[in-house]
Amino acid sequence: MRKIIETVPNFSEGRRRDVIGEIVSAVKGSPGGAQVLDLSSDADHNRSVLTLAGDPDQVRRSILHLFEAALPRIDLRSQRGEHPRMGAVDVVPFVPVTGSSMAECVELARSVGEEVARTFDVPVFLYEEAATAEHRRNLADIRRGEFEELAEKMRDPRWSADFGPREPHPSAGATAVGAREFLIAFNVNLGTPRVEIADKIARAIRHSSGGLRFCKAMGVALSERGIAQVSINMTHFRKTPLHRVVEMIKTEAARYGVEVVGSEIVGLVPNDALLAAADFYLRLEAFDPSQVLENRLALPGE
Amino acid sequence: MRKIIETVPNFSEGRRRDVIGEIVSAVKGSPGGAQVLDLSSDADHNRSVLTLAGDPDQVRRSILHLFEAALPRIDLRSQRGEHPRMGAVDVVPFVPVTGSSMAECVELARSVGEEVARTFDVPVFLYEEAATAEHRRNLADIRRGEFEELAEKMRDPRWSADFGPREPHPSAGATAVGAREFLIAFNVNLGTPRVEIADKIARAIRHSSGGLRFCKAMGVALSERGIAQVSINMTHFRKTPLHRVVEMIKTEAARYGVEVVGSEIVGLVPNDALLAAADFYLRLEAFDPSQVLENRLALPGE
Repeated sequence: MRKIIETVPNFSEGRRRDVIGEIVSAVKGSPGGAQVLDLSSDADHNRSVLTLAGDPDQVRRSILHLFEAALPRIDLRSQRGEHPRMGAVDVVPFVPVTGSSMAECVELARSVGEEVARTFDVPVFLYEEAATAEHRRNLADIRRGEFEELAEKMRDPRWSADFGPREPHPSAGATAVGAREFLIAFNVNLGTPRVEIADKIARAIRHSSGGLRFCKAMGVALSERGIAQVSINMTHFRKTPLHRVVEMIKTEAARYGVEVVGSEIVGLVPNDALLAAADFYLRLEAFDPSQVLENRLALPGE
Repeated sequence: MRKIIETVPNFSEGRRRDVIGEIVSAVKGSPGGAQVLDLSSDADHNRSVLTLAGDPDQVRRSILHLFEAALPRIDLRSQRGEHPRMGAVDVVPFVPVTGSSMAECVELARSVGEEVARTFDVPVFLYEEAATAEHRRNLADIRRGEFEELAEKMRDPRWSADFGPREPHPSAGATAVGAREFLIAFNVNLGTPRVEIADKIARAIRHSSGGLRFCKAMGVALSERGIAQVSINMTHFRKTPLHRVVEMIKTEAARYGVEVVGSEIVGLVPNDALLAAADFYLRLEAFDPSQVLENRLALPGE
């Protein structure tokens, strides 16, 4: 099976279309680089999010090309936006997708982080699964204070960089490089216009208020359709799978006499997340992913 | 998306291991050929079934190599077995899997059939979706009378070959080449030892006795586990999907106070068949297969 890692670098430019275009072109044109699956830019946030996928070497090359293109074009001394940021290239997470493990993504985060720091003289903080200490695991904690307070923050040994110089790069700040699970954006639609029911269900299922460990959720009104929705981020679909969320929402909704009328996946979803739902609902016994024809074909030398 | 076609050629040798090995080696070693996913040989049937997959050119090359290796080694004048057969290479179905349509498999059956007939002087009958007349669609009808009565049968213009000579090949008979849907072998286990309940459910769900159009089924006793099983062949998983069969069995079983305790897929299953089950049970709205990360990666040039 081909080894595929996803990376979702965020860079701090969401307004100047020409600059965004130049940066994305540099990444797309990088020889031996990863595939660009998506680009999403937000002017209010003044931030762009690239989705790339490929084998470890391909994603490494693409990230290096991204720094090469972004650093001369983004100067945080004048950059402003609603989204918190501490770097021109602000965050680089690596995500295991197919044939790759979290351990490999942690290893990749460390070696790419080291290479970025050495090549571009940008301090790198390792975060999430790649973090070197528990207090440095959460991205929001690392980034707190943003670019403007970073020089001061980095004087505290608890917040020295994992790789690179002891001070921020003058224009490019610092970058958080890490490893995390694939995030699935998943919405469940209810047969009611009452958003307070969606809110109550969201509170029941989400981790922060007592629910499922890898589930974030909130209630949203879909006014055009006249229905309410539970809008969900699944942060670890292997440990908190889609079917468990759907079944829990059905049960909670029934308590209000409300039905689940549909659901939607926003953006990309790993095949495994859907196979797990099929496995559960079809009550498969001893199902082996190598029984999937397409997985067989991907195995080299068979 | 890479275009993948499955082919499941049956050849009339299931006893002489050396001969089977030579034939399979020739197919495996064919340059630019398809991937060999499976081989299943049966001595009673005196027959072997190969499962191959690849793009249209790869499966074409493998089939031609199969004929090249099988024809000098199998002589139907002396071959005997329980399974009906009319050819040394008896049947060659092409099955659309990924990025390929039934129309393409029909086209491939016709062009490979023509090439086989021309190259090896073997008459070829097109069957199933590739058939040139309704009475020639069913493989069992084409093969009725087997090798021994084939010369006589072919004198009837209704049973002249689609390609190749007007008489059978002296030692290799004739070959049926066709196009059909992927067949999924799927078993559903019941929480009862009573095989008569499995039998009744099988009769309820299968096409031949009034059930679902693309479903064959029978009841089986799993004596080791002390339970009964509905053993199913799904002959068109897109039109009669897995979830519909499972839900129908649950409903029928409930009538006897019996539960579905599990299910199993025997052999290979196309990814789409499982995604359809996930789509149904998760109640997805407007799900697009291009949202599956792995499908994105397979798209060339993106």
